Amino acid sequence: MPSTVPLAEISPRITFLQRLMADHGLGLALIRQLADLYYYTGTVADGFLAVPADGKPTLLVRRPQERLAAAEIPWDLAFYSDLGELPDLLADLAGSGPLGLELDILPATLYLRLHNKIFPGLAIKDISPLIRQQRMVKSAFEIEQIRRAAAILDETYAEVPALLRPGLTELELSAALEYRLRLRGHQGLVRLRNFSLEMFFGHVLSGHAGLELAYTDTPSGGLGFSPAFPQGPSLKPLAPHEPITVDIASCVNGYVADMTRLYVLGDLPAAAWRAYELIQDLFQYFEAEARPGARPGDLYQGLQALVDQAGLGDFFMGRGLERVSFIGHGVGLELDEFPFITARFPFPLSAGMVLAFEPKFFLPDIGLVGLEDTGVITPEGVEWLTRTPREVVKA
Amino acid sequence: MPSTVPLAEISPRITFLQRLMADHGLGLALIRQLADLYYYTGTVADGFLAVPADGKPTLLVRRPQERLAAAEIPWDLAFYSDLGELPDLLADLAGSGPLGLELDILPATLYLRLHNKIFPGLAIKDISPLIRQQRMVKSAFEIEQIRRAAAILDETYAEVPALLRPGLTELELSAALEYRLRLRGHQGLVRLRNFSLEMFFGHVLSGHAGLELAYTDTPSGGLGFSPAFPQGPSLKPLAPHEPITVDIASCVNGYVADMTRLYVLGDLPAAAWRAYELIQDLFQYFEAEARPGARPGDLYQGLQALVDQAGLGDFFMGRGLERVSFIGHGVGLELDEFPFITARFPFPLSAGMVLAFEPKFFLPDIGLVGLEDTGVITPEGVEWLTRTPREVVKA
Repeated sequence: MPSTVPLAEISPRITFLQRLMADHGLGLALIRQLADLYYYTGTVADGFLAVPADGKPTLLVRRPQERLAAAEIPWDLAFYSDLGELPDLLADLAGSGPLGLELDILPATLYLRLHNKIFPGLAIKDISPLIRQQRMVKSAFEIEQIRRAAAILDETYAEVPALLRPGLTELELSAALEYRLRLRGHQGLVRLRNFSLEMFFGHVLSGHAGLELAYTDTPSGGLGFSPAFPQGPSLKPLAPHEPITVDIASCVNGYVADMTRLYVLGDLPAAAWRAYELIQDLFQYFEAEARPGARPGDLYQGLQALVDQAGLGDFFMGRGLERVSFIGHGVGLELDEFPFITARFPFPLSAGMVLAFEPKFFLPDIGLVGLEDTGVITPEGVEWLTRTPREVVKA
Repeated sequence: MPSTVPLAEISPRITFLQRLMADHGLGLALIRQLADLYYYTGTVADGFLAVPADGKPTLLVRRPQERLAAAEIPWDLAFYSDLGELPDLLADLAGSGPLGLELDILPATLYLRLHNKIFPGLAIKDISPLIRQQRMVKSAFEIEQIRRAAAILDETYAEVPALLRPGLTELELSAALEYRLRLRGHQGLVRLRNFSLEMFFGHVLSGHAGLELAYTDTPSGGLGFSPAFPQGPSLKPLAPHEPITVDIASCVNGYVADMTRLYVLGDLPAAAWRAYELIQDLFQYFEAEARPGARPGDLYQGLQALVDQAGLGDFFMGRGLERVSFIGHGVGLELDEFPFITARFPFPLSAGMVLAFEPKFFLPDIGLVGLEDTGVITPEGVEWLTRTPREVVKA
């Protein structure tokens, strides 16, 4: 199951980053975040990948040293124990131009130490937008990893109907699925970039619990069962005629797939069926329009117009004024990658982008009615990687 | 199971923080981190708790608004949608003196926006050291929560012997324990403060896999089963005569307990038994010396001296030069809290501190031999909250 990243993947990634760095006049990048490190090295470390404007990068490692010295890493390795050693280690790499750091994830104390003490006088620029822009287009190798993450979701969701029964709690259902996903190779940890995001597997929600909005930038929240972590499954038992949504992200070899399916014990109320039919229309629209070159803002407006025509605008992706700004989000090494399907996301779609499309309605007195699939943009249209039929499963 | 934090807990916490703020001349604190927010409000939010030097705090909430408006929160509430609204909302609260922000966890971009755009001209100081100092001493209510987290570890570890068999993989054992912990109320997510820490439940390791050191500041690492997340359980099958360590953190109502126990199929080699006996001596030493007033540096040196006398210094808390700097760490709302048992941790122990004490040896050709318990410092000595006997269980 371990699947190392081929050098043929990694080498062009550095070349591409160096081109972006040249476009923005950066002299050196120091990459610290674990998903980014994995992308550009095939490993993770407590350390920095130093990428010069030209030439070979060096992976600066604080730990683990012996383990990484024995690993297959395509770049030069250097070891250090204190940040103060970095300027000497980097003496041959630094070109002219500002230093690129991932300012969206570096804590202020570390940023201030690098800026004021380690590299005084060196201008610093945020390199994260460039990295995120690069990472939003996936290679065939990356799409294959996401396909594996999607496959274990499909296999596991196929077991949901046999598990469902009145009185089972949301937590019991979630725990049973978490367990099955782990045995199928879910690595457990799902990386999130946004510093105020938190998640654990996902949201298994039913009835009124599906209407509890979150403190995170996610459409659904859930009650949870601890006031310290008020999201996700709760101790609420499943009951007949409520929408039951299973929204779980899986992660295989670092790559994420995300899927939501809808279940019910008995039958749903008519309003839930109307929302479900509209969701099918939104998927059709997305499949027809999400082609290379399409602008996320146009997609967003087209989808929102369909929702407004149906009179469900106040219940879409949240409720009233508390609605998230996106209908879809990129997935890859993080759950919250570029691109986003929002009113203003700046980059057009292109082949190789992978997104989770998740139209969701929060219906008063009923609950959350939503579906979600992870798919890749191709010249021929969206190829869905999660493949479970988009039916409401009655148990 | 939901256990809201009593107002009688929260109110004195703010008074204590305001005293610390006065000592350090801070005019206002804006608290953003989720564990800190929970500590001072009993809830979490996408927002800031504004704590003035004197008087009542205000919880500034971006989301969720309706849900928090209906919640029992002891402080004034104000809602905003953009950071630019903060100065107006805070006009009545700001005193003289610098603004306190949690600079160890705020991303640089957010820090720079607050510093340069939202509060230009206002001096900013890191308030995290004060918050961590306050939070390291737990109330009876907090200790009760940690006791609950410890209890589900004890219950779950009692099931390990029946699960163990040759050929079971580390992942299969871990997944079985994760599942049982979830059903017993483990909230799933365990909060970590250090930005480069990552963890998923913990480390179920066996034989040579126990010797794989981590990219994180943790004594053990493990192989993992994904190159993207090379820590924790792997697909290695359990084999006879190897040390099998189960090191899992549980979290109930936001509070963490941490425990490691040692198992073997058959019997351990003699060198492992010698390390195990030394670990018992280290626990005895810790129990005798870890009293209110004791200095962590003295404890550290005393423990290290025992290890060196036994000739195992090179294999303690890592290997050779790759050893972590601590033998114990505070637990509470985060896994990596104050106090730390290190050579230089500045605060003496006091009653109410809760720590995980985890002496561990990394024995060449054998594996990881270690134990860990979570306990509270009392005037009478350490009261252990995890209570599973510290025996090697032979299965």
